[in-house]
Amino acid sequence: MRVGILNIGTELLFGQVVNSDAAFLSKELNHMGFDVMYHYIVGDNPNRIRAAINMLFSDCDTLITTGGLGPTQDDITKEIACEYMKDELILSDDAMNALVSRYQSMNHSMPDNNLKQGYLPSRAVPFINDAGTAPGFALSNDDKNIICLPGPPREMTRMFEKSAKPYLKQFIDGCIYYKIIRTFGLGESSMEMKLMPLIDNQKDPTIATYAKEGECSLRVTSKRKSLGEAKDAVDNMIVEVDKLIGEYIYSFDNEDFEKVVFDKLIEKNITISSAESCTGGLFAKTITDFSGSSKIFDRGLVTYSDSAKMDELKVKKETLEKYGAVSEETALEMAEGLFKASGSDLCISVTGIAGPGGGTDEKPVGLVYIGYFYKGEAKVKKIQARNINRIWNRNYTLLNMMKIVYDCIN
Amino acid sequence: MRVGILNIGTELLFGQVVNSDAAFLSKELNHMGFDVMYHYIVGDNPNRIRAAINMLFSDCDTLITTGGLGPTQDDITKEIACEYMKDELILSDDAMNALVSRYQSMNHSMPDNNLKQGYLPSRAVPFINDAGTAPGFALSNDDKNIICLPGPPREMTRMFEKSAKPYLKQFIDGCIYYKIIRTFGLGESSMEMKLMPLIDNQKDPTIATYAKEGECSLRVTSKRKSLGEAKDAVDNMIVEVDKLIGEYIYSFDNEDFEKVVFDKLIEKNITISSAESCTGGLFAKTITDFSGSSKIFDRGLVTYSDSAKMDELKVKKETLEKYGAVSEETALEMAEGLFKASGSDLCISVTGIAGPGGGTDEKPVGLVYIGYFYKGEAKVKKIQARNINRIWNRNYTLLNMMKIVYDCIN
Repeated sequence: MRVGILNIGTELLFGQVVNSDAAFLSKELNHMGFDVMYHYIVGDNPNRIRAAINMLFSDCDTLITTGGLGPTQDDITKEIACEYMKDELILSDDAMNALVSRYQSMNHSMPDNNLKQGYLPSRAVPFINDAGTAPGFALSNDDKNIICLPGPPREMTRMFEKSAKPYLKQFIDGCIYYKIIRTFGLGESSMEMKLMPLIDNQKDPTIATYAKEGECSLRVTSKRKSLGEAKDAVDNMIVEVDKLIGEYIYSFDNEDFEKVVFDKLIEKNITISSAESCTGGLFAKTITDFSGSSKIFDRGLVTYSDSAKMDELKVKKETLEKYGAVSEETALEMAEGLFKASGSDLCISVTGIAGPGGGTDEKPVGLVYIGYFYKGEAKVKKIQARNINRIWNRNYTLLNMMKIVYDCIN
Repeated sequence: MRVGILNIGTELLFGQVVNSDAAFLSKELNHMGFDVMYHYIVGDNPNRIRAAINMLFSDCDTLITTGGLGPTQDDITKEIACEYMKDELILSDDAMNALVSRYQSMNHSMPDNNLKQGYLPSRAVPFINDAGTAPGFALSNDDKNIICLPGPPREMTRMFEKSAKPYLKQFIDGCIYYKIIRTFGLGESSMEMKLMPLIDNQKDPTIATYAKEGECSLRVTSKRKSLGEAKDAVDNMIVEVDKLIGEYIYSFDNEDFEKVVFDKLIEKNITISSAESCTGGLFAKTITDFSGSSKIFDRGLVTYSDSAKMDELKVKKETLEKYGAVSEETALEMAEGLFKASGSDLCISVTGIAGPGGGTDEKPVGLVYIGYFYKGEAKVKKIQARNINRIWNRNYTLLNMMKIVYDCIN
């Protein structure tokens, strides 16, 4: 199936936001085996939206639109889709009930102009919006399908996953199966070199590597007549991949490193606490992003100042004076102090120079010490981030902290 | 002048990369006063590129393309631009010299297929590439202009700044000026209702509202003969906007709330510490995302467990037993305990139910208490997040914490 993506929204043409919707949808649709032929972006203007729809349908079977479903006067996607598909807008019970219960749950009264969002094309398959007020829908006519989704990425991605993707499955011809393998500690070029025997002359399954911030992932894809065949082909290839780069793999199932680590902590019932300096709470925030984290996370002490390190973690003044806050010795004392305070099974500490300021020749920006206290023993690991920027340095440090937790408890 | 942006590259249609080129060019072109009418993205396919060029020129004077200027066979942008403009490719001295000296400076010999990059349309104004091998160019015919730039963002942005922008200046008619106003505490529909007297019958300046996660922003745009006139028109309109929704505005300059709060803390030299339960370090992480945060941030205590609250913040056992961890009383004691530990000017605490589990009828998911101790007085604010999901609840709580800090120190 040939698909066109039509993003409607003047903010995109102003360059205020990057079009992440188009990238997300393209990736998803390609994975499902559809051919994405075009991205087309227009403002909230009826004639230009009409022309775009005509142009895209001249070469595509299916159109996915984002944006223009809001309650305001310039939101006209629904009306134009209806016109193209020769349908009319009627008050939809599904959409209206969702709207009413949404406002009830917020304890707000619904503004009058939101009523507009209760209307959908009469033949539409409604898609309820879990994260906003604008409902989406699918509408067909003469072998043409139009699927209208809201513009805000959070609303769009959820509605795509929950409603549009299941709806689109009816159009899949042939079966695509893929798995994404996640690794840490191996750059993209090195990974490609190691996998060369498999990548050279690949037909099906195909292997593609993707560099992500600080890590690298790998997609193995097969398209066969049946799902079983595609799955077998992918699984067999993954056995070969595992032989070549197994030591770097932390997930065969496209899970984030933090999720893998969190699940392992829960599974083994290992309690954890953190003492952070340069990451400023990023580790604690990441672990507590997961529901159920109170089962294993006791406390996180963000000891940013020297006095906080001394007060909260009993780091010795002499240590700070002699070795500095960014040192092996301080990281170790932080981990030990944290263990004394919390008694958690695993206590992890971190101190480093996140930048951009604060670096010296001896202790450059990106230098980080990670301390950890586990099973009665304190250890420390030194890392040097590439210093791309402060945010990158902090995220890279986080991944290294996750790696240490992973290695400890695995 | 009406401009269309045509990005050529299959990788965009695969969703492997987000289209940052289109956002960059849009922002730049809008600032110059041009109207960006379309983004159009197609793969490396001659017929689809031709159709896109025809479609865009049917409504635009100028086209800016990115991508398809490389040395390989599927790079065909130059050939098709030439064909549309009824010109022919010839060996360009400028392009060839740049290529040769680029390879010399890298100490590499030039691969044969790079020779192709020495050719440009005979009437083209060549744009030299400082960051890669593909030259760009501008080419005109009968009041239509096409400007072809390379696809990689680093090459494209440099060539735009150095060559395309100066070239485009000849077409400037009128000047666009806009400002983005950021607000917190007002939904998009309510904002539009309040602004209706200004939005109804708007011509210039125009007002557009945008919902973002938990907040709402507003763009005021004017296009006039001179930049001064446009700026005056926008500034005058903003005075009117301020009268209607001023209490909700935290930035007149499109800054993020956390940035506004951080800058204010630095400017007033107010030290801050945080004690977090449900947000698990998100506040500390957000403040320490900014370089220079060590000047004002002392410590952040993520007291997730009851014992952490008692150990680190001296919350009373009786308080936790009688009122629960999620209560006004606990939030207040957390803020007071944090002040005793840190002595920071402003001590903010938070306890709530981030969900999805842990809610009761009496204390539903999304219920949050934010305590704060400032100038000798402890206060608490109760909020109820809409409970879209855990991440949303935590982010919404963060914004409310920022609002409290903002109100305290403003």
